[in-house]
Amino acid sequence: MKPHPFDAALHLEPTGVGQYTGQTSPAYWNMVGPFGGITAATVLAAVMRHPQRLGVPLSLTVNFAGALSEGPYQLLAQPVRTNRSTQHWTVTLLQPDDQGQPVVTTTATVVTATRRETWSLSDMPMPAVPAPAAVPPMQVDAISVWFQRYEFRPIQGGLPQRWDGGGDSSLTQLWMRDAPARALDFCALTAMSDVFYPRVWLRRAVKVPAGTVSITTYFHAGDAELEATGRGYVLGQARAQEFRNGFFDQSAQLWNEAGVLLCTSHQLVYFKE
Amino acid sequence: MKPHPFDAALHLEPTGVGQYTGQTSPAYWNMVGPFGGITAATVLAAVMRHPQRLGVPLSLTVNFAGALSEGPYQLLAQPVRTNRSTQHWTVTLLQPDDQGQPVVTTTATVVTATRRETWSLSDMPMPAVPAPAAVPPMQVDAISVWFQRYEFRPIQGGLPQRWDGGGDSSLTQLWMRDAPARALDFCALTAMSDVFYPRVWLRRAVKVPAGTVSITTYFHAGDAELEATGRGYVLGQARAQEFRNGFFDQSAQLWNEAGVLLCTSHQLVYFKE
Repeated sequence: MKPHPFDAALHLEPTGVGQYTGQTSPAYWNMVGPFGGITAATVLAAVMRHPQRLGVPLSLTVNFAGALSEGPYQLLAQPVRTNRSTQHWTVTLLQPDDQGQPVVTTTATVVTATRRETWSLSDMPMPAVPAPAAVPPMQVDAISVWFQRYEFRPIQGGLPQRWDGGGDSSLTQLWMRDAPARALDFCALTAMSDVFYPRVWLRRAVKVPAGTVSITTYFHAGDAELEATGRGYVLGQARAQEFRNGFFDQSAQLWNEAGVLLCTSHQLVYFKE
Repeated sequence: MKPHPFDAALHLEPTGVGQYTGQTSPAYWNMVGPFGGITAATVLAAVMRHPQRLGVPLSLTVNFAGALSEGPYQLLAQPVRTNRSTQHWTVTLLQPDDQGQPVVTTTATVVTATRRETWSLSDMPMPAVPAPAAVPPMQVDAISVWFQRYEFRPIQGGLPQRWDGGGDSSLTQLWMRDAPARALDFCALTAMSDVFYPRVWLRRAVKVPAGTVSITTYFHAGDAELEATGRGYVLGQARAQEFRNGFFDQSAQLWNEAGVLLCTSHQLVYFKE
């Protein structure tokens, strides 16, 4: 049986403890490199598969230092400090340059932890939105290849119909799941936290070059919440707070259909003009 | 003339390119280690003073791997990739363990960039609040030492008056500036993005052990906005989105008195029970 495209993209060949070789995936290709979410998911995969990993992911920061070229890359994951219940990781992606010298394309830090049940409370309830079945799926033929790896059902803030400079909000809400459907895990959730197209396109209704510089995702879900989500839909919400001199930020929340906040995510994005 | 306590705390002795020795500052002491904001500011200082630095800070992530002990630490800042207009850094803090072996206490990544004027827009206007002069300063005698390094004027969401489990919001708004006043720079802004006491104390009105695991700050201000802020007050706003099984998140925004959003910041925080 062929693996799911997401699992195929995250295939890593171990070359030592915490050292892997991977291949960029044509199935998740964006405009000038891989979809950032698949790179972030790959970073986390390197930690998840490390024999010394403690617990589940809490926090992930990925910095996109340079676009990955099509082809192989090297991935290094190192636990730099292990405490009683938390563990701190640094992860690096490298690709050879024109002279064959390894160059850093991506830096990252990850925190994992063993979690125990405590007093818990949600201070950011899921917004009132129609159920996934009531929202038509988005037609994705004309967009980057990686869009075809998801089933998106946009509720509001879909791609502008007209690029006429008439935008008035940076808010997007959409239901999503992998296409074909796949049981949610930490790596897939990581990728989903980066699916939102550039807020500057929506807010201005002008299509300018843009790309994520740095993304941070905080995991509120543990294994139980992921298992409960299964192959169900995830509601994603994203908005910007500030666009200024070449960069804007984005804050995002992802809930499952039962209204459980699975993760919150933030990113800083470059834009031109 | 004695240096400002903030500058004294950020004093670093260079020991090589991107290598420094520093000393924890009793003036910014918290309960079991230094105020996290001063550690984050020190990380950024190591980048700001590096001879190869390109541009101004865009993004900073600091992971608190272990509490710093009172005494000297080693600080390493390395530019791992320099592009035409952005630069990616890794920063590490180390202290000797009981056997004198260096142990990582803090990992960090920083992105700096040269910024140009572009289309800009604020999508998160400053909330309507009374002017700083209309808000009485907080009495800070009984709290951690580092609170005395700030003038705080809490508008709402100050420390609970009664720890009776009756909290109903995680929102804090306060005016702040360094005490004594000091012209704002990137390092001081970094520290200010971490001044908010644990949201779990406010939301529950129960005082439980808590500490930041990871903080990310995105800088929207450039040199011009910092200069315009000068020694004026900064409005800080912070709230949580989710408290779950030992950790909660916090989102924060910092504006100057003119209503310019200087930075947005996010953190993941450990809490007990």
